Formats: sequence, structure tokens, C-alpha cells
Amino acid sequence: METAVDPQTLQAINVIESLKARYFRTLDTKDWSAFGTALADDVDVDATALGGDRVRGASNHVAALQTDYGDRVTVHHGHMPEIEVHTPAAATGVWALQDLLIWPDNIRGGGFGHYHETYTLDGDRWRISSTTLTRLYLDPTAAQRLFRSSQRYRWSIGRWAASFRRRRP
Amino acid sequence: METAVDPQTLQAINVIESLKARYFRTLDTKDWSAFGTALADDVDVDATALGGDRVRGASNHVAALQTDYGDRVTVHHGHMPEIEVHTPAAATGVWALQDLLIWPDNIRGGGFGHYHETYTLDGDRWRISSTTLTRLYLDPTAAQRLFRSSQRYRWSIGRWAASFRRRRP
Amino acid sequence: METAVDPQTLQAINVIESLKARYFRTLDTKDWSAFGTALADDVDVDATALGGDRVRGASNHVAALQTDYGDRVTVHHGHMPEIEVHTPAAATGVWALQDLLIWPDNIRGGGFGHYHETYTLDGDRWRISSTTLTRLYLDPTAAQRLFRSSQRYRWSIGRWAASFRRRRP
Repeated sequence: METAVDPQTLQAINVIESLKARYFRTLDTKDWSAFGTALADDVDVDATALGGDRVRGASNHVAALQTDYGDRVTVHHGHMPEIEVHTPAAATGVWALQDLLIWPDNIRGGGFGHYHETYTLDGDRWRISSTTLTRLYLDPTAAQRLFRSSQRYRWSIGRWAASFRRRRP
Repeated sequence: METAVDPQTLQAINVIESLKARYFRTLDTKDWSAFGTALADDVDVDATALGGDRVRGASNHVAALQTDYGDRVTVHHGHMPEIEVHTPAAATGVWALQDLLIWPDNIRGGGFGHYHETYTLDGDRWRISSTTLTRLYLDPTAAQRLFRSSQRYRWSIGRWAASFRRRRP
Repeated sequence: METAVDPQTLQAINVIESLKARYFRTLDTKDWSAFGTALADDVDVDATALGGDRVRGASNHVAALQTDYGDRVTVHHGHMPEIEVHTPAAATGVWALQDLLIWPDNIRGGGFGHYHETYTLDGDRWRISSTTLTRLYLDPTAAQRLFRSSQRYRWSIGRWAASFRRRRP
């Protein structure tokens, strides 16, 4: 982080930060076709560290989010990027995350964590090529709602809560 | 976003991001004279998409905010800027928004949305020349408080809630 | 802010923003050894404006945070940096702050404010050399918890609340 950064690298960092901003904006405004263009075709989205799924492929990821988020308000804010450009076509980044889900009955829930990502230059466009999610906290309301709505999440949240209890004696 | 960005453009993006940071900081610290310098004299602030007003002119905008916010704690955080510099003196930007109002009785309310803005170079200073607000969500507490405190907002929130119901079947 | 910014300065701004991102990430993930490397050895952390302590020295600051935060979830998000590089080895910055503490019984509390900081180039690494905290708001829950857990904070929060009442007639 402390080594010299040339203007081309600063440009790439700026483009990658805007790319992730577009990812979040189009996710929360449910602009699914624009959202898809932020992703590499073979994007690898790994939420297993918080008890979720690992989804490979842009179309699978978009389809999963449309199912999970289509009928509710979502807010995803990324903060404090740490982007490093390793080659002219490959970069990594860490973002702090705050997310919020609002169900139709106005119940709110969400949490905090980090995204650990890779980015790849595809022609003249940077795309998100992988995302690994980690959690600092998941709101009990969100956990409860997700718990009730899905057998998969019932298991997931149990696993997440157990790992959480281990970390907090 | 994927085209080459020269150092002058990166400088302008940096200055515009700092300008908006100063806008939010001076708004929330009620430093109204510094706040005013972030705005073009003929700034156009359009909150009609969420049922609010359209205010033209820096002095009118400052006066309206002093009335609405002067006696309460406000927190406005902008996130994930997408700034594009189109000419040496004209730029556009989108910011994700989180805001929070805290009334003297400690009731809290707020919401989430986006700012769609234009910026103009005025002499050697960039200024905000227009802002259009959109909402992802407005907290029911905030809606209720605004509803009770103003006939104008009574109508506004009703319109906002109706548009919201249309979007969320 | 409106004067010309050369590429070297843009590089320094990028590095300082990443430094602060690393500071927050390692704080909230309790990665204390990495956290310490973000700080100048003689860092000066001044929370007296909100009724807290003034701590000098990186090892003292790390020790205090380990005591205060070791057994709970913390989330610290910095927003909207205003970084100015004054010499090749000295910079200042202002960040908006949102923080959240989550106690083991799932009670949440936190607040909003600003960090006013200085940064110093130490060899080839930028470090945080001073931080002064100001508050827009501290959640009553957080205030209550801090109030109950510490005689020092009992006094602090009282002073903070009094200054708050003076500002909000």
C-alpha cells in the first residue's frame, strides 16, 4: 500500500471503485440488466463463511438475487475501499459493508461485514470476478426472518450463530 | 466509466468528492456560511420525486434547511460516488445516501436513497449546480414526524407512500 | 481544496485513505497487531471534546481499545474523507464517522461524528499521527451502557449530554 502508485494505477482504482458503486446502486434499484454488466461471466460469489451459498456464474448470481430481493427494499452500502492493482488486468479489493433489508411489513434487519474481492479487466472493462463475504454482525431480526423463510438459512444461521458464539466468550 | 481517465480528470474527481464531503459536514454541523459556498448561486434542488419541493437558488436552499434542520441533530452520509467529468468545467455524479434526523425527544428517523447531481467549475472552484433526490426507503418514524409537522409533507408522504406501494406488490 | 493537485499528491491521498480503511477494518476484526501499524508511535488520540480521554502513544491506544472492545462486536465506518497534503510528509484529514457497539446481550448503540486527523510519512509509510473526535450524536442506549459500566464514563457522558443540551435549545 505504501509503494509508489502511478497515474495508470490511480485510474484503475477510480474505475474499480465506480464499478462497485454501480454494482450496489443497480442492485438496490433492481436494475438487473445493468447489474449483470458489473460481473465477470464466471464470477464466483462465496458466502459460505457466513453460512450462505457459493454461487458461480453471473446469470446464476443475478437469478438468486432477483429471487431473494425482488419483493423488498434493500440497501447495500460499501465503505472504505482498499483496492490494490497487481497487474494491468488484475486487482483485489476489500470493502466494509452495511446492508439493510426491509420487508413489506416494514420490519428492518441487516448487518455489517466485509467483501474481499478480485477484479479482472475484460477487454476495456473492469468486472468483479470474485467476492467472498465475511460478517461482523447480523441483526437478530434479519437472522430470524431468514431463519423462518428458508430451510437452507435455518441451517446457515445456526452455523453462523455458533461461530459467532465461539468468537465471543 | 471504462475509458481512459487523465490526471486532470482524476484531480477534478478528487476535488468534487471533497466538495460533497464538505457539503455534508457543514450541513450536519450547521456551519451555514461554509455550507453555502459549496453551492452554485443558481443551484437547483429537486426533491419532487420523493414528494418534496423543488428549490432554486443557494440562498433559498440554505434558508429552507436552516428552518427544517436548525433545531435537531442531522446526519447525512454520502457513499460510493460515481463522478464523471464531461468537460473541464462540467461534471455529473451519483451518490448513495443515508440520512438520519434526531428530534429533541430522541426519536430517530431517516432513510436511504441516491443523489443525482451536476457540478460546475465557477472560476477556480467546483460547485454543486443541481441535485435530484430519489429514495429507496423512508423510515416510518421519519414519515410520521414529517407528516405531523407539515401540511405540505402530509401530502408529500402520502404521494411517496403511494408510489412505494405501486413498486412493491 | 480548489488548487491544482499533482499526481504525487493524488497518490498520497489514495494511500492515506487506504491507511484509514485498514485502521477501521483491523479495529473491527480485532487484528490488533495490524491495527498498531497504522499508528505513529507517538500518536495523540483526543476524545475530550466528547467527554472521553486523551491517550498518547500507539501501545497505550491499542491497550485501551483491547480493553474496551475486546468482548463485543464493533463497527466503525468512515465516510467522505477530506484529505489535504500540505508537505510531502504531512497531511490532514476529516472523516465522517458512524460507529456501532453490540453488547453480548444483543443491545446495540452508537453514534455519529467526525474525526479530525493528521498523518505523517514515516520512512516510506504514512501513519496516523493524531486524531481528534467530535460528535453529532450518541445513541441513548450507548450512553446508558457506557454510563453504567464506568465511573469515568458516568462523568463523561454527563458532560457530553450537558454540552448537547446547550447546543439544542
